[in-house]
Amino acid sequence: MPSDIFLSKDISVTLSTYLKGKQYSDISVLVDENTERNCFPFISKIVPYAHLIQIKSGEEQKTIATCEQIWQRMTDLRFDRKALIINLGGGVIGDMGGFCAATYKRGIDFIQIPTTLLSQVDASVGGKLGIDFNGFKNHIGVFKEPQAVFINTDFLKTLSPGELRSGFAEVIKHCLIADKIKWKEIQTKVLEEQDWDDLAEHSITIKTKVTQADPEEKGLRKILNFGHTIGHAIESYYLNITGKKLLHGEAIAIGMIAEAYISYKKKFISQKELEEIRNYIMSIYGKVEIFDFDLEKILPLTLQDKKNENKTIQCSLLEQVGKANYNIPVTIKEIREAIEYYSL
Amino acid sequence: MPSDIFLSKDISVTLSTYLKGKQYSDISVLVDENTERNCFPFISKIVPYAHLIQIKSGEEQKTIATCEQIWQRMTDLRFDRKALIINLGGGVIGDMGGFCAATYKRGIDFIQIPTTLLSQVDASVGGKLGIDFNGFKNHIGVFKEPQAVFINTDFLKTLSPGELRSGFAEVIKHCLIADKIKWKEIQTKVLEEQDWDDLAEHSITIKTKVTQADPEEKGLRKILNFGHTIGHAIESYYLNITGKKLLHGEAIAIGMIAEAYISYKKKFISQKELEEIRNYIMSIYGKVEIFDFDLEKILPLTLQDKKNENKTIQCSLLEQVGKANYNIPVTIKEIREAIEYYSL
Repeated sequence: MPSDIFLSKDISVTLSTYLKGKQYSDISVLVDENTERNCFPFISKIVPYAHLIQIKSGEEQKTIATCEQIWQRMTDLRFDRKALIINLGGGVIGDMGGFCAATYKRGIDFIQIPTTLLSQVDASVGGKLGIDFNGFKNHIGVFKEPQAVFINTDFLKTLSPGELRSGFAEVIKHCLIADKIKWKEIQTKVLEEQDWDDLAEHSITIKTKVTQADPEEKGLRKILNFGHTIGHAIESYYLNITGKKLLHGEAIAIGMIAEAYISYKKKFISQKELEEIRNYIMSIYGKVEIFDFDLEKILPLTLQDKKNENKTIQCSLLEQVGKANYNIPVTIKEIREAIEYYSL
Repeated sequence: MPSDIFLSKDISVTLSTYLKGKQYSDISVLVDENTERNCFPFISKIVPYAHLIQIKSGEEQKTIATCEQIWQRMTDLRFDRKALIINLGGGVIGDMGGFCAATYKRGIDFIQIPTTLLSQVDASVGGKLGIDFNGFKNHIGVFKEPQAVFINTDFLKTLSPGELRSGFAEVIKHCLIADKIKWKEIQTKVLEEQDWDDLAEHSITIKTKVTQADPEEKGLRKILNFGHTIGHAIESYYLNITGKKLLHGEAIAIGMIAEAYISYKKKFISQKELEEIRNYIMSIYGKVEIFDFDLEKILPLTLQDKKNENKTIQCSLLEQVGKANYNIPVTIKEIREAIEYYSL
């Protein structure tokens, strides 16, 4: 069941109206130290009786150990099955808070209020919930739609430029896999000049359409993984290397250039189109230096990608600019060449 | 989606036929040391290429820590989304193995082969999956149906008398909540003389009907919890007390007497019917001595029951013998009296 998505200029009004129609026995708001300070004031008057559950910020917190803390708080608060969790934060809060809600007493309601660009244009839509597991991204989780999603781009003002840039990678992805005209349009503006309301709506429209057609990623939904086979491996690898950690979108930016290269090698897109992709993405994200000994460790990580079947790496690639295809077998050799192309 | 249930005299044939129609990339069989020795030989020739995942037996293993071991083995085996887990064992194996499958890469297929009476007549049907959490039974989990369930009562020969008796409590429950004639019938035989094929089919038919009408326990399904509000609290309490640990059905037997007493106090059943229930159950399970200081600790545990709403304890009670109702508010005082009645 797809959830209600509210793109709202005044979140306190829409959220308040929404909650008035419901009968929750208790409400909890999951925050980290940043969203408690910067975002919770936007809604605190709407839910004055809510219990705050605070976790530490950062992808490295997206573990089963943090879930245990959250489940414990819910237990201590004696939450029953009619309780509600509001996840106020980025992808970590949304994915993990959603997973905790979906598994507490076999499932209670949850609402997503994404506060980062990344979570507004991607993570909050489509029902993917979960946590990382021993270095593998989103390895443990479930599919479950939230009851509702509230999106307000005012929250983006609380982001660092790095976080905004990270989320923009998924906007670029949505253009590349589904809308050539928008891909041309975003290239005419630098990051700071983009129209976030317009782009959030654009991304959500594309993502909703794809995920409603294939909620559990049996087929079509895999196109949303363009850039992610290689991107996730790179993100996982650098996660634990001091000083080299990448934000999700920074890793996906690398993955998109590399996978666009494989699309080019398979003659799906032209050399000119490949270069256009490489140049625009590099102009925003710069280049991360990937040494040979890094590469050797990144390659095996692509074998754990969730899209793989029968031990074969299966990529989602650009069929043309503005259109993607999935389940395309790719060899380790091709991935090596693609990352080498990125590093040229 | 309800799963296929096969009641089979020759599990190797039915399982083999079933698997021939599928295309799994890998198969794993989850066992404990007992089911590996006593039950795996029944199917080992059907799945010679399967990877065994062995965990320790016992309810105290039904934790997130054991899930982490299982997820790690699946990860090490590089299981993709087309892999299958066969859960070969009792309720712990089925509930926890199912939960691990339902959450690994957001869900892979699993098959239940219940080997205890308890799991054959109850746990394997209805899609409740999960683990215990800090002393709370099945506190973390999801609803998800297995692809198929294979039931063969030959496995019951591998059980201790205590385990058989434990499972029989759910058979009694299904009679009390849904079939007065069968309730009369089972009372004519001692435990050893019961017809397990007949009773397994009887229980599964009742449970399937109820769970298909209400898979996520929004209403009707709660009748299956007769005896469980008090039973679970008692089971949780004694779980960590050396020498006093109860099997699930032993605790539910106590819960059914106590909750039948509340049904009597609320004038749903007669004193004669209450005494018939008490006498038959006591004749099989004997009486567990519950001291006053135990009682004081058991009572607050009923507040964590998953059926509760708005901090009120909600019981499923007998409306008459052979019929149950749910969402009946019950006070701590009534529960205290009921356990005192049991202890008379």
